[in-house]
Amino acid sequence: MVLPERALIEGIRKLARSSRNSAVVRGIGDDCAILQLPSGCDLLATTDLCIERVHFRREWHPPESVGHRCLARGLSDIAAMGGEPLACFLSLGLPSSLPQRWADRFLRGLEALARRSKVQLAGGDISAARDITADIVVIGQVPVGGALLRSGARPGDRIFVSGELGGSATTLQRLYSGKRIRPSRSNPHFYPEPRIALGRHLRQQGLATAMIDLSDGISIDLGHICKESGVAATIDSSRIPVVRGATLEMALHGGEDYELLFTVPAKKSVPLRIAGVKVREIGIVRKASHYAPAIQILGENGRLQPLAPRGWQHFSKSG
Amino acid sequence: MVLPERALIEGIRKLARSSRNSAVVRGIGDDCAILQLPSGCDLLATTDLCIERVHFRREWHPPESVGHRCLARGLSDIAAMGGEPLACFLSLGLPSSLPQRWADRFLRGLEALARRSKVQLAGGDISAARDITADIVVIGQVPVGGALLRSGARPGDRIFVSGELGGSATTLQRLYSGKRIRPSRSNPHFYPEPRIALGRHLRQQGLATAMIDLSDGISIDLGHICKESGVAATIDSSRIPVVRGATLEMALHGGEDYELLFTVPAKKSVPLRIAGVKVREIGIVRKASHYAPAIQILGENGRLQPLAPRGWQHFSKSG
Repeated sequence: MVLPERALIEGIRKLARSSRNSAVVRGIGDDCAILQLPSGCDLLATTDLCIERVHFRREWHPPESVGHRCLARGLSDIAAMGGEPLACFLSLGLPSSLPQRWADRFLRGLEALARRSKVQLAGGDISAARDITADIVVIGQVPVGGALLRSGARPGDRIFVSGELGGSATTLQRLYSGKRIRPSRSNPHFYPEPRIALGRHLRQQGLATAMIDLSDGISIDLGHICKESGVAATIDSSRIPVVRGATLEMALHGGEDYELLFTVPAKKSVPLRIAGVKVREIGIVRKASHYAPAIQILGENGRLQPLAPRGWQHFSKSG
Repeated sequence: MVLPERALIEGIRKLARSSRNSAVVRGIGDDCAILQLPSGCDLLATTDLCIERVHFRREWHPPESVGHRCLARGLSDIAAMGGEPLACFLSLGLPSSLPQRWADRFLRGLEALARRSKVQLAGGDISAARDITADIVVIGQVPVGGALLRSGARPGDRIFVSGELGGSATTLQRLYSGKRIRPSRSNPHFYPEPRIALGRHLRQQGLATAMIDLSDGISIDLGHICKESGVAATIDSSRIPVVRGATLEMALHGGEDYELLFTVPAKKSVPLRIAGVKVREIGIVRKASHYAPAIQILGENGRLQPLAPRGWQHFSKSG
C-alpha cells in the first residue's frame, strides 16, 4: 500500500480510544478482542459490507458520510432487535492511490457516530484493495430471550413505522439524475439516524410483537415480517408518512431510510411519539391466505391492490 | 449481480444449516444473529479480510482452499487466545462474472472446516464487487479472565513453537517463481490447520504465559509478544523446526504457518507433543534493554545477532 499503513493504523487506534464501552475488556492489540457481557444477556451480532460504486460513490458521498453510513447500517440492525450496541469491528480495504485524507475523514465520520452511540471500535483488519471496501460488524446485547424478532407478528396486530419515509431514495434519485446535492448533516441519505432508543423503548415496554429496520423499503421489509411470522398485511396508502419532496412510491419502495417498522397487539395503546421520534400507524396484520397477496395496499381510489416487493434498485436503474 | 443472488443465498443457508453450535440461538434470517454464551465466559471476536490478488490468486488457489484459508485465519486467532470457536459471519463481495461454481466450491471449503471445528455460520452479507472479497468474523468463548494474551511473557520464560515452520512461504515462493504446485490437502499453504485443541490445552493446563499465532512469521509475531509484554527474547537458530524443503529464513520470516508461539515459566515441564502436535523449545524471554535489540538469534557461528522484523511481503516481492 502506498497509503501509509502505519498512519492508517494510528488513525484506527485513535478512533478505538475515542469511544469506550465497558463491555470491551480488551480491544485492538491482541489476536482477538475480549468482551464481557453482563449475565442474563443474549449477544447480538450483525455484519454489513460497504463497497465503492455499489453502496456509495466517491463523487457523491463525502468520506464522513461513508463512514457514518457504514456504522449506521449495523447500528440500525441492533436497533431493530431492541438491542444495545456495545462494540464494532472494521475491516477496511483501501486502494493504494487513495489519499490519506480520505481515510482520515472516513474514520472521523465513523467515530462521531460511534461516540454518540457509545460503541467502541474493538478490532478489525486492513488490506490493500482495488475499490474502497468496508465491512462493519456490530456486537450488541439484549436481555435473554428479549430480542424483537421478525417472526412475532400475529393477525390483528397493528403496523407502525417511525419517522418519515422516502427521503434517502429521493436524494439518491436526484444524484443519479445528475443533480448536485449538498451532503448536509440533516439529509438522512448521507447521515441516517439509527433508531436505537426507539427500538430499546419498544422492547422495554413490551409494546412490539415483531420489528425490522427499513433498509430495503416497506414493500420488501414488511414482506420479511410476513414471511417469518407466517402472516399477511394490509397497509393504507393515505397513512404512509411520506417525507416532503418524496413520492408515495419512494416511501414504499425507496429503502435506506433506516426507520423501524413494528407490529403492536390491537389493544395496546401507542403514543404518537416515542423516544423523540414520531410513530405512525399504517396498517394491520392479517391471516395469511393462499388466495390473497401477502401485502395489500389500500389506494387513494379506495381499492385494495397487491404491493409487490420492489427495492431501491428500481431507482438506481431509472436514473 | 449476474451471479444469481438467490442461488448464492441458498448455498450460504445450506452451509449455515450444515454446522450447528448450540451457542447460536438464532442464525441467518433476522436483523441480527443471537448468541447465548454460558455464564462465566468472556467473548472473543476477530475479523480477517481476504481479497483476490492480495491474499490469494484464482490461478493458484482452488476455491476450496480460499474458503478454508479464510476461516482458518479467524480460527487461528481464537486458538491463539486459548479459546473455543462458536460461530462465524461471512461478508462476501463477488464479481458479476464469477461462475456460480466458484462460489459453491468456496463455500464447500469453508463448510468442511466449519463442520470439523463445530463453528456455525450465523450470518453475513453479500454484495457485488470487482474483486472477490471475503471478510470473516469468528466469535469464540473463553472462561472469564482466562484468555492467553500477548502481554503475559516474563523474563526467564521459555519460548516454544508448535509444528514445523516455513512450509507456507516455501509454497508461495514456488508459486511466485512460476512453478505449478498441486494444491494438496496436506500442503499447509493451501489448507493450514488452526491449532484450536493445542491452544485450549495450554490454557486449561495453565502452561503458557503468553501466546500468539504465527500469521506473519516469528520475527514479526515474537516481536508483538515482546512489545506487549515489555520484554526481549533470544532464540536459537539450531532449534527452529524448519519444515523439509524450506530454509531457516523462511521459517523465521515466512508467515502464514498458523502454528502457535507461546511462552512457559522456566520451572514448568512441557511435553514434546501436546494435543497431537509437536512443540519445540526455541529460546528464552529476557529483560528488555535499551542497549540490545528486542529479538536476538544465536546463529550457527555461535554469535548473537539481532533478528529484524520481516514479513512474508519480502517473499512476494522477490518472486
